[in-house]
Parts: sequence; C-alpha cells; structure tokens
Amino acid sequence: MADPALDGLVEALRCLPGVGQKSAQRMAYHLLQHDRAGALKLARALDGAVNEIGHCARCHTFSRAELCDLCADSTRDARLLCVVETPADQAALERTGSYKGQYFVLLGRLSPLDGLGARDIGLSALLTRASDGVVEEVILATNFNAEGEATAHVLGEQLKARGLKVTRLARGVPVGSELEYVDLGTIAHAFMDRR
Amino acid sequence: MADPALDGLVEALRCLPGVGQKSAQRMAYHLLQHDRAGALKLARALDGAVNEIGHCARCHTFSRAELCDLCADSTRDARLLCVVETPADQAALERTGSYKGQYFVLLGRLSPLDGLGARDIGLSALLTRASDGVVEEVILATNFNAEGEATAHVLGEQLKARGLKVTRLARGVPVGSELEYVDLGTIAHAFMDRR
Ligand SMILES: [Zn+2]
Ligand SMILES: [Zn+2]
Repeated sequence: MADPALDGLVEALRCLPGVGQKSAQRMAYHLLQHDRAGALKLARALDGAVNEIGHCARCHTFSRAELCDLCADSTRDARLLCVVETPADQAALERTGSYKGQYFVLLGRLSPLDGLGARDIGLSALLTRASDGVVEEVILATNFNAEGEATAHVLGEQLKARGLKVTRLARGVPVGSELEYVDLGTIAHAFMDRR
Repeated sequence: MADPALDGLVEALRCLPGVGQKSAQRMAYHLLQHDRAGALKLARALDGAVNEIGHCARCHTFSRAELCDLCADSTRDARLLCVVETPADQAALERTGSYKGQYFVLLGRLSPLDGLGARDIGLSALLTRASDGVVEEVILATNFNAEGEATAHVLGEQLKARGLKVTRLARGVPVGSELEYVDLGTIAHAFMDRR
C-alpha cells in the first residue's frame, strides 16, 4: 500500500548505524511531514561528502587533498607517529597543543563483535607508514575502553615486531572514557607520561 | 581542522529525529569509511521521496497522486471515516480486512512536549473532511498510549461539536501498545466492539 519512494527512503535510512526499521520509518515520516528542506539539505551533504572527501595518502584520515593539512605540514616532527581512532580524537589531541608529531588515523578500532578486524582499521597501511625509516616512536592513543585497549595491544605487538619503539598515552586519561570528552590538561599530562 | 563537507554532513544528519551531535558524527564517519554506496543511495532516496511524494488531498496521507489509491477507491464506504496517526497504522488496520470505510491520516499526534499541536496534525483539515455531509461516523484509531488517547479526546470533542457520531476502537487493543504491532485478530475484534 505504501509508495515505493517512501519504502525506498525507509530502506535507505537503514544504512545509518543504529537505525532499524522502526526508527527509519519514524525518520522518513518526520522528514516528509515536517522537514523537507532538511531532507534535501541532507541529500546534498551526502553527495558532497562522498564526492569530495577521500583519504589522506599518509595518515588515512578524511581529506579532499592527496595529503591532509597536517601531513603536508613540514614543521611537524616526522619521528613521532601518534595513532588515533577517529578525526575527532585527533582534533582533541591537537587542541592540547602538547604534541608536535604526525598522526595515523585508524577510522575505527578492532571490534570483533561488529566484524571489524585488522583490515578495517588499515593495519597494513599503518605498518607501512610506520616503517618509513624516519618514524622512531609510535604513540598509541586509541581510546581507553575495552576495544581501544585491545586495538592498542594488537597494534603494539605488530609494531614492536618491526623494531619500532611503541608507547601508550599514560593512564592519566580516566579509564572507560572517550578522548574527545577528556579535559585538555589531563590529555597534556598523559602525553608527558606516555609509557 | 575538519573538512567543511564533513562538518556539513554531520550538521545535516542532525535533522533526523533523535540524532544528536555525537550520533551524527558516528554516522558520518561510518558512511564515509564503510558505506559510500549506501550514502549515495540515501541521497537519491531523499531526493526521490521529497520530489515525488506529496499529500493526498482527501486523507492527508503521503501520496504521489492528487488522491491516494484508497481515497480513489469508490467501493469504500464513504459514511465511515477512520482516523489514524500514521500510514503504518493504516496499513495495520487494512491487513485485518475488517474495515471497508475511508481514512484520515494525521501523520502525527498531539504532543505538547514535542511542540506538536492541533495545527501539526491537520485538525482543521480533518474537521473539513468529516463535515462533507456524507461521513456519518468517525472512528478514532489513534494509538492507545497517553498521547494517542489525548489526541483522540481532543479530536472527539471537536467532531462531536459538529454533530458527528464519534467512536473509538474498543479496548481489545492492549493499553500502552502501538497498533502496528498488535495481532490482526485483536484489531478485528476492536473494530466490532468500537464504542
Ligand atoms: Zn594525513
Ligand atoms: Zn487519501
């Protein structure tokens, strides 16, 4: 009885993580009934992001240029490579002003329950990046929750096996928290105390 | 530091009900990292639905034609008008096969906490529709939860004031539940016992 375009919208909304059939239906009704302008804006934003944003060739973060601004910045210390899960985590670290090295952005973390393995977080790209002969130390700054710790463990083992010095942000960061929400002073201290 | 197209996508995703900054960010990362095809499909679906789907001139449900299939069906009993909250509720009632009248779809319900008032659920359009001189009975089939009951109460008062017979689905429908998930037999019985 429903319109195929409406059914199609409900189905398409289910590509969003955490959105099931019932949520998708409520979203579709809401957009068509109360926010058609928002729906069109979202369509434009999806097109724009997919068409314009790729991945930085060095650090893997989202970037429209071959190299992101940070990787292209020759004043950053190329001997230090900090591994983070997301661009938001990287931004949180940058706001502290306490780190002047480079980054590798996993864009995820090992999560066997969600079917996310080493391939999804670009493990081999990280190993290649860290083995450039310039990087001396890899600082693992994945989140301090179960999945982030597991990710740090796996990455650390692989990096050490290649003769790299591997450190982890100090546990000044409260256990169980997400970096993005940690106060700047705590993160700065954790950089100094990295182990 | 982030890309404006990425920021724009996060911002645009917040037009979805129940999606805050953190969820929107997770959705944007997920789409760009793992499901670019899904993101493009969603953009097409949003465009398609907004451009192709309007509202039925008689019952207010989503429809690409001036009149939806059901309103255009001359075999339906025009003396009965059943008021439902959503197309999904209407579909649930139709599946029972126990109702042969017409419908009015509110596409919402009174929800003062969400700022949804009489205007948002098309009260005046319903009153006009029910006062066509043919409708003899209006069956209120809003959900049997607090907001649905309040909506039925307000609509009932207004319809009765215009001399219309107003009934409500019998309480065979379990209190607190949503019609879409109620078994067919219960709904069929509730139609017979409408009060
Ligand atoms: Zn980069
Ligand atoms: Zn109609």
